[in-house]
Amino acid sequence: MAADTAGAIHTLGELAQRFGLKLRGDAGLRIAGVCSLSPGKPDCLGFCADPRLRGELAQTRAGAVVLGGRDAEAFTGNALVAQDPALAFARVAALYDPSREFQPGRHPSAVVAAGAQIGAGCWIGPLAVIEDGARIGDNSFIGPHCVVGRDAEVGPDSRLEAQVYLGARSRLGARCHVQPGAVVGGRGFGLARTPAGWEEVPQLGAVVVGDDVEIGANTSIDRGALDDTVIEDGVKLDNQIQIAHNCRIGAHTAIAACVGIAGSTVIGRRCMIGGAAGIGGHLRIADDVVILGRAMVTKSLTAPGVYGSGLPVMPAREWRKLVARVRRLHHFEQQLETIRKKLRLETSGDASEPDDF
Amino acid sequence: MAADTAGAIHTLGELAQRFGLKLRGDAGLRIAGVCSLSPGKPDCLGFCADPRLRGELAQTRAGAVVLGGRDAEAFTGNALVAQDPALAFARVAALYDPSREFQPGRHPSAVVAAGAQIGAGCWIGPLAVIEDGARIGDNSFIGPHCVVGRDAEVGPDSRLEAQVYLGARSRLGARCHVQPGAVVGGRGFGLARTPAGWEEVPQLGAVVVGDDVEIGANTSIDRGALDDTVIEDGVKLDNQIQIAHNCRIGAHTAIAACVGIAGSTVIGRRCMIGGAAGIGGHLRIADDVVILGRAMVTKSLTAPGVYGSGLPVMPAREWRKLVARVRRLHHFEQQLETIRKKLRLETSGDASEPDDF
Amino acid sequence: MAADTAGAIHTLGELAQRFGLKLRGDAGLRIAGVCSLSPGKPDCLGFCADPRLRGELAQTRAGAVVLGGRDAEAFTGNALVAQDPALAFARVAALYDPSREFQPGRHPSAVVAAGAQIGAGCWIGPLAVIEDGARIGDNSFIGPHCVVGRDAEVGPDSRLEAQVYLGARSRLGARCHVQPGAVVGGRGFGLARTPAGWEEVPQLGAVVVGDDVEIGANTSIDRGALDDTVIEDGVKLDNQIQIAHNCRIGAHTAIAACVGIAGSTVIGRRCMIGGAAGIGGHLRIADDVVILGRAMVTKSLTAPGVYGSGLPVMPAREWRKLVARVRRLHHFEQQLETIRKKLRLETSGDASEPDDF
Repeated sequence: MAADTAGAIHTLGELAQRFGLKLRGDAGLRIAGVCSLSPGKPDCLGFCADPRLRGELAQTRAGAVVLGGRDAEAFTGNALVAQDPALAFARVAALYDPSREFQPGRHPSAVVAAGAQIGAGCWIGPLAVIEDGARIGDNSFIGPHCVVGRDAEVGPDSRLEAQVYLGARSRLGARCHVQPGAVVGGRGFGLARTPAGWEEVPQLGAVVVGDDVEIGANTSIDRGALDDTVIEDGVKLDNQIQIAHNCRIGAHTAIAACVGIAGSTVIGRRCMIGGAAGIGGHLRIADDVVILGRAMVTKSLTAPGVYGSGLPVMPAREWRKLVARVRRLHHFEQQLETIRKKLRLETSGDASEPDDF
Repeated sequence: MAADTAGAIHTLGELAQRFGLKLRGDAGLRIAGVCSLSPGKPDCLGFCADPRLRGELAQTRAGAVVLGGRDAEAFTGNALVAQDPALAFARVAALYDPSREFQPGRHPSAVVAAGAQIGAGCWIGPLAVIEDGARIGDNSFIGPHCVVGRDAEVGPDSRLEAQVYLGARSRLGARCHVQPGAVVGGRGFGLARTPAGWEEVPQLGAVVVGDDVEIGANTSIDRGALDDTVIEDGVKLDNQIQIAHNCRIGAHTAIAACVGIAGSTVIGRRCMIGGAAGIGGHLRIADDVVILGRAMVTKSLTAPGVYGSGLPVMPAREWRKLVARVRRLHHFEQQLETIRKKLRLETSGDASEPDDF
Repeated sequence: MAADTAGAIHTLGELAQRFGLKLRGDAGLRIAGVCSLSPGKPDCLGFCADPRLRGELAQTRAGAVVLGGRDAEAFTGNALVAQDPALAFARVAALYDPSREFQPGRHPSAVVAAGAQIGAGCWIGPLAVIEDGARIGDNSFIGPHCVVGRDAEVGPDSRLEAQVYLGARSRLGARCHVQPGAVVGGRGFGLARTPAGWEEVPQLGAVVVGDDVEIGANTSIDRGALDDTVIEDGVKLDNQIQIAHNCRIGAHTAIAACVGIAGSTVIGRRCMIGGAAGIGGHLRIADDVVILGRAMVTKSLTAPGVYGSGLPVMPAREWRKLVARVRRLHHFEQQLETIRKKLRLETSGDASEPDDF
């Protein structure tokens, strides 16, 4: 079922005042929750932040709508007018989100080592394991089946939903939010080759995570080999991401699902990395770089900007022909040269272009 | 060790009758399990559904074989003849599969909230957590370390193997099968940008999963932002798949491992999506679309058919040259134009072809 | 925080003797741990195995450095000279790694079936589940929330860090190391199509893992359908890898994170597979093959060597033009033919080149 907003009710006027929004219409309208524009619910608040949704806006049954000034002109229903309607709506919606509420305490089935320190106002959930020397800051939530390893640290107001692993000596800052199945502080994949096979290189660092970081479901962040793997403040990581040992992810960078980042790579601040992109090891990505989904990054990107790669989908028959054609490119090149010679055109110097990846 | 069929024994004649197959040979032959054709075991049943395996068929030591009419003509051993031998074999093999058997009950270490409802004939495994308001249908199996969140619902005859997370208010239908490490109902990756960084957009929806759905190991399905993420009846999801918030996967679609699907995308019915394909957000994929492995889908696919993309592997030296050559294509294009002008050929109008992705 | 080496102290002379290294400088220097070259710590040992780090070597504050003969000539500080400095350093560093130390015993919250066999010197951690008939070899460590399934087997001196799933009848050899969230022995994705939808094909095999195998965080290895999925001795698997049913991975092969391998594929020995590569089903990869990161392997690779594929990243504007250009290749090909005819050059026979993937 969709969101059950669990009884919280606010009038439209209260919401306008609380969030500094301009009210249009019935200040006394009771808003019991938030909803999509289409179809919309009469006792709920919708929002419109995308011009493509103006058609839905005209037909919505939502009791009121958060929208921008331009859309407000044409809209005759109850409204909260905002400079950034998506952001305003997010903040209003948080009022109706029961998912982060909890009563402090400790479930009797939790296993908390005698030497662990648990702050005030925390909830330690059923079957959570808090190992010796671990510290949990005030008002944090440790869900069922989480493991907080030896001497690990969770900052205040953080939330580990369930089945999260935080390895020994690793640290999460304040207001972090970690989804189920995330592994923070597993062994880095450090190996040394010998004639008899691979030997493990000890991974003696940790993972150090700043404040306000989100870590998605089944995401893995390995601890460093000698120094630490670092995730700076405000980084947002989606699900199924792999971050190898000794990486550093700059503040406020957002990374979509299924991205893999190889060891010792440093990503700048405020970057946005699209889903399933892959970034090689020992690279530097500048601040404010945008990498599109599925891009293959094999060299450092030293200037801000938007980067992409890959051949998008086509009917399989055409795709097979296209691959064959790409593989014949050396023939085209030879034929072109033959023609150019025959026509006495200048010879191309391009063949010496370096392979810079 | 390979399958141990735990004592179940059926005669070939019983199997023929039970599954409506045509018997050839010894009806009294005692079949203790199933096996590969090569080498095959004398007290077990093999199968041949692939013409490429006819060589193995001739040499198998299996006591009997399930096969199609054409293969049966040439085969002199004991046989069960089926129209669809792969399907017939699957059904016979299920008789010998002990992995789904269990005794009803509740392990004393399970943590079941007072307000949870557990149906008749269920097994609640060691250290499982069933939160308040959750409902488990009759005859379902909840394995060790599973979490069934507040007000979540599991239909009858379903099976959560181990370490599965089903988030608050999310629902699984009847006869679902979920592998270890799957996360159903984690937070969608909804963010709003502000000058100070990213803010979380509350994710108030749930995940609604139909009947007969399989969900693989370490697969993640995020809950919706306002509405629900929906997985329709009969969908089969392999391991390590990522399905973002507000997606809808149509009935009987099968998705191979490592596929990522970005937010709000709608996939049709009976689609087949190959391993590690990536599908962008807000797209529509028609019914009966087949997407080949590793394809990069950046636009909607409105017609059924087979689609693919990507450049398959080659020796690295050749690959590097090929990449350089592809990057020189604009030179080729210019050279062609120069030649065409010199030869007074018609000028190409292709350069204006739109970039439709 | 970075590595805390927990009190172990060795003199440089002791280290030289213990690991057969050539000592340069102060044999009595007390080494309390290992460190990076830059900046380096006076009571710690660094290492230099990469010519690109010679600049850091000259400036390091490390008390001593492990290095090769060539670097030793120019270095005036305390040193341990090794033929393979990376390997020598890895072995020294292991002395200072407290992460594998444990006291034998069984946490009272662990759920160990009466019919399970636990070897001498093992640790069974809090809330671990060991099912009936499972066997744990001597001196193994089973961390919190691990599940060792019915009749499964863990060899001696192995380590399951936390939240690991080892399915029924699957086996790990000696000295294996498994990271959190790994799923070994989930259901293979075997399906048979029927007019009414997909039916599960029973997966009756297991996963058989050799000795000295590493398995990364959130990696999934499915059990076989009839026979077993096999991971041979010395294989090293990074995080987030997917290995489908009935694969065989040859001894001492190393696979980086996010690789997916489809069913029944056989990988040779001593292969190295780069991050996020994808390998199709029913293929054969020869011994000593190196596959570069993100390569798309759609056919068998029968000879040793280095293989790659993919188009690396470029500025998005250029990338979009390049994709359009690649899609116009058939026009180029036609234009070339027209020109060649006009110039009475020989016609190309390349168009018949097979699509061999």
